[in-house]
Amino acid sequence: MEKISKVVVSRLPRYYRYLDELRHQKIERISSKELSKLMNVTASQIRQDFNNFGGFGQQGYGYNVDYLYEEIGKLLGLHEKHKMVIVGAGNLGQAIANYGNFKNRGFEITALFDRNPNLIGKKTKYGEIRDIKNVYDYVVENQIEIVALTLPKEAAREIAEKLVSCGVRAFWNFAHTDLSFSDDIIVENVHLSESLMKLTYRIAEKNHQ
Amino acid sequence: MEKISKVVVSRLPRYYRYLDELRHQKIERISSKELSKLMNVTASQIRQDFNNFGGFGQQGYGYNVDYLYEEIGKLLGLHEKHKMVIVGAGNLGQAIANYGNFKNRGFEITALFDRNPNLIGKKTKYGEIRDIKNVYDYVVENQIEIVALTLPKEAAREIAEKLVSCGVRAFWNFAHTDLSFSDDIIVENVHLSESLMKLTYRIAEKNHQ
Repeated sequence: MEKISKVVVSRLPRYYRYLDELRHQKIERISSKELSKLMNVTASQIRQDFNNFGGFGQQGYGYNVDYLYEEIGKLLGLHEKHKMVIVGAGNLGQAIANYGNFKNRGFEITALFDRNPNLIGKKTKYGEIRDIKNVYDYVVENQIEIVALTLPKEAAREIAEKLVSCGVRAFWNFAHTDLSFSDDIIVENVHLSESLMKLTYRIAEKNHQ
Repeated sequence: MEKISKVVVSRLPRYYRYLDELRHQKIERISSKELSKLMNVTASQIRQDFNNFGGFGQQGYGYNVDYLYEEIGKLLGLHEKHKMVIVGAGNLGQAIANYGNFKNRGFEITALFDRNPNLIGKKTKYGEIRDIKNVYDYVVENQIEIVALTLPKEAAREIAEKLVSCGVRAFWNFAHTDLSFSDDIIVENVHLSESLMKLTYRIAEKNHQ
């Protein structure tokens, strides 16, 4: 696969989400102009973005919604199966476990782990919450690729390093710290408090206008 | 306040987080070069970013950590008090309520609301979860500026519109839909599944290299 710029890639999930909504509305074709209006971006940006991937066969009147949805899904790796475990089964971990439509998007959450004795054994839709001390054997035996880290930052780094040595290749990291590894390991950091600060910045900016 | 580019603003929270860590390590001064190494960005980017805000008085050997932390905090609007309520008190709403150090960053969560009778009345550290039908009166009476929306997308738009008519000016939106209002209303969308798709894109990219 050709290397596509990070900025373009970062826009793909949003296209995917809008196309999914169009599919649910039984809309079969859409022009870049209509899509642009819906998504509040320029039609020329849409065409440029799609040209990175060969243009997705726009012809006659616009794009075929199903085809475009499928192709972007493939690009996003959603046609491959991904096994994921959640490390940290507090509210955030449980929220992630219950969030959205993982299974239809190629994700299979296979287990949740925590160190809190009050949580271990608690039933979830992915089985009982397991003791974190068993996570390392588990990821080896089950060839887990992706780990969602929903635990305090103090514990995150050490646990992540051990998981890498057990074959984990990717982290969806909610701990309040940046994780960095060699280029082989993929980390997507989600810093919720940073997103809240962007909001307060914009409020402050308005207050001082 | 002068209008600063969105990209620069989006980097401020990360600076703030690293400066907070330096303060906790009792580090008093830091050069742009050291900060660049720590944060894995170029020193020239750091200097350029800070020059947007007058440079933050670097002199002699580097920046004063406390001063820089305070100034960036002011820019981020964290010295102003913000009252926030959480609409949607499921796992995600409760996770947000328990997440991080809101109070030290100027946030006061004053209440959680839900429509689920099994949740209404449940105790949290911000009082009992309230019935969502009372949220409109509540935000008017308590002059709530910010609402965190942690509820399904089907309900999000209608509730958000009503809240705007009750004086809410900003949303921290976790619902799986983009909200857009007039320019007066600030929306920070957090699409968790999009961040997960960025991760799977990068895994797919590696698999096809």
